[in-house]
Amino acid sequence: MLLTDLRKKVWKDNTALPANGLVLWTSGNVSARDPESNLVVIKPSGVHFEDLTPENLTIVDLDGNVIEGDLAPSVDTESHLYIYRHRQDIHGITHTHSPYATCFAILGKSLPIYTTTSAAVFGREIPISDIAAVGETAIGKEIVDKIGNNSALLLKNHGVFTVGKSSTDSLKAAVILEETAQSVYYALSLANHIEPLSKKYVQEVYDFYQNNYGQK
Amino acid sequence: MLLTDLRKKVWKDNTALPANGLVLWTSGNVSARDPESNLVVIKPSGVHFEDLTPENLTIVDLDGNVIEGDLAPSVDTESHLYIYRHRQDIHGITHTHSPYATCFAILGKSLPIYTTTSAAVFGREIPISDIAAVGETAIGKEIVDKIGNNSALLLKNHGVFTVGKSSTDSLKAAVILEETAQSVYYALSLANHIEPLSKKYVQEVYDFYQNNYGQK
Amino acid sequence: MLLTDLRKKVWKDNTALPANGLVLWTSGNVSARDPESNLVVIKPSGVHFEDLTPENLTIVDLDGNVIEGDLAPSVDTESHLYIYRHRQDIHGITHTHSPYATCFAILGKSLPIYTTTSAAVFGREIPISDIAAVGETAIGKEIVDKIGNNSALLLKNHGVFTVGKSSTDSLKAAVILEETAQSVYYALSLANHIEPLSKKYVQEVYDFYQNNYGQK
Amino acid sequence: MLLTDLRKKVWKDNTALPANGLVLWTSGNVSARDPESNLVVIKPSGVHFEDLTPENLTIVDLDGNVIEGDLAPSVDTESHLYIYRHRQDIHGITHTHSPYATCFAILGKSLPIYTTTSAAVFGREIPISDIAAVGETAIGKEIVDKIGNNSALLLKNHGVFTVGKSSTDSLKAAVILEETAQSVYYALSLANHIEPLSKKYVQEVYDFYQNNYGQK
Repeated sequence: MLLTDLRKKVWKDNTALPANGLVLWTSGNVSARDPESNLVVIKPSGVHFEDLTPENLTIVDLDGNVIEGDLAPSVDTESHLYIYRHRQDIHGITHTHSPYATCFAILGKSLPIYTTTSAAVFGREIPISDIAAVGETAIGKEIVDKIGNNSALLLKNHGVFTVGKSSTDSLKAAVILEETAQSVYYALSLANHIEPLSKKYVQEVYDFYQNNYGQK
Repeated sequence: MLLTDLRKKVWKDNTALPANGLVLWTSGNVSARDPESNLVVIKPSGVHFEDLTPENLTIVDLDGNVIEGDLAPSVDTESHLYIYRHRQDIHGITHTHSPYATCFAILGKSLPIYTTTSAAVFGREIPISDIAAVGETAIGKEIVDKIGNNSALLLKNHGVFTVGKSSTDSLKAAVILEETAQSVYYALSLANHIEPLSKKYVQEVYDFYQNNYGQK
Repeated sequence: MLLTDLRKKVWKDNTALPANGLVLWTSGNVSARDPESNLVVIKPSGVHFEDLTPENLTIVDLDGNVIEGDLAPSVDTESHLYIYRHRQDIHGITHTHSPYATCFAILGKSLPIYTTTSAAVFGREIPISDIAAVGETAIGKEIVDKIGNNSALLLKNHGVFTVGKSSTDSLKAAVILEETAQSVYYALSLANHIEPLSKKYVQEVYDFYQNNYGQK
Repeated sequence: MLLTDLRKKVWKDNTALPANGLVLWTSGNVSARDPESNLVVIKPSGVHFEDLTPENLTIVDLDGNVIEGDLAPSVDTESHLYIYRHRQDIHGITHTHSPYATCFAILGKSLPIYTTTSAAVFGREIPISDIAAVGETAIGKEIVDKIGNNSALLLKNHGVFTVGKSSTDSLKAAVILEETAQSVYYALSLANHIEPLSKKYVQEVYDFYQNNYGQK
């Protein structure tokens, strides 16, 4: 079986979606690209998260051919692959309809930075896309066009895509985005206007956190 | 024991109600109609979900006679049966008071389509009923009169009924309805008006999803 | 050990408080009065719900003397006893600070009936108390003065007391009150005014439900 | 291994953070200071709560030197130590971004006392800090300057710090703060103004509770 270690990581990160309240039923997915082979491990389509195993994930190449797996890959696979083909620096992608972030996706508004945690993880305002044309390639193109150097994008009237150097990095971005969207939603519902943190302050927090957080 | 396979499915779908945050205590229920015999498997009345087993579900015929089971069927049984008698295409029904969907049921407003996920699953605005007269036949009639070709109906000042080709299909509709109602509630509480997705776009998403999602 | 069966019921109903999202930490409590002896089984003070057992509950008489138990009874015991002394029909009491019901307790407003479920369980508007003077007797008196023939009372700037023929009946009232308060909160935050269900309709639903729900 | 009993308590209190819905992912932390040695037991940086054990916590002295442990301590360690160095009465600290309390931290408003539970635990309005300069010493100084004789502080645009005589006392303050912030948020979103409880009443409730709650 190909990529057995990467399968385990992607399986664990997919199961973290329901555990962190980011998905219901079978929607949402995490993928990772193997840096050596450019093969992509991704959730199969329409399968419940509790039925996932490292072994029943699907492996596709960058053109969408199924290389290994009995199950059809996620309906969102072509969006993931479009991103991987156009961004050599991205090796992990998470997609959710997490409820508070999706609130802002419905409103069609970018999410300014109001908290030190989102400053530390994102370093800049979370952008919002336009409504993507129907079809997965169109969604992938919209993400690549709009995400810039952020690790998260609000997809208008749809949900969230986050990216990172690994599937776990993209998962972390999806969790922190939902956490900050929740508190910001509450605050905005009590006040007509709240001043976001300044760009300078956000950058300082981001730099501090990138240098000091976690284990070396 | 009759319909042992269908009992297992209906039991699993009933236990998914609390697991997905759609019900509290003993309210809410899932039923299925066997296509061969027209017998209906349904939750017994006032039983906690953790005490359900495939074996203690109740089987009734379309006239409401208990065919198998020691426990009285759900107080909502006659509503389910009215639907099954009047809609040959429906073989599964889910009823909940899930909190965000019930918000819209209290408001007495249909729920437009603001998200691609609800477009993909419902294909059209979720309708709202009138207040049903007291009694289960009146509720069943109100549902049949108002649900049209949708798979979900908001029952005014009450909750949600969803229908499908199987109990699992109706359960999925109930989960996705609550998920979308949650994000839409948040968005509407921050904005006086949000433009729903166009009918044309909703139809395109629906068609794409029906043809591309899940395993063949 | 006294009242071993009643201890089990009260223990189970206390553990249902966190399981249904009605309490955090050690606050909230359920008690029951034994109809024979008038002894009351109640949660000990400041104990975490996961550390409760049927055996470590405290038994007191109607004057508050500890009859059995190594642990001091709930700080709210005198409120429970005041109710039991003044209402011979009540044999179970639940107290919580469940978040949505407490919202209405902070607002100081009674909760009209907007849903068929709350009509079925309560049959009439949930009343609101005045701010009780400090001390448990004062709280008990305020409850007895204001709850009338309802099974739930919003205690102003405090939380919820529910009563019933058994501890489980009072627990059910606390669960359904929180469920309905949640959906009503959402609806009220989207609309300036919502018309409650009519008294006549509420009474009809209540009568239907009392006669048709559950197992005989 | 040093401080094995204190390690167990701090480990248990850290695991209570996700169990009580106060944290997501790896953020948030609890520490305790040993009264004898002045050594501090704290969560290691960037470690998931389910991977914590009493043994893999980090022990530092008041100057931040790692005394025992293979893992780098929390990025917030210097904030904790600043507090311990300047407040001899504090032996436990909890830090979270719990969503409802963080709402008020984003709004930049102190949280008045609207409920008897928060009156009993805090005894006075929860203060709000200014935006702290970037860096952990600055955060520690802001906390010491603003928390006064309260056990909780809203850290502007950041989250919550709570303190106590033990890690468990600080944890309890963090749980009760989030519980009260949740209900108060709901109430404020339905009303333009709500009158807080009077200072006199809050003090009476506080005094009653300090003398009557829990086991001796």
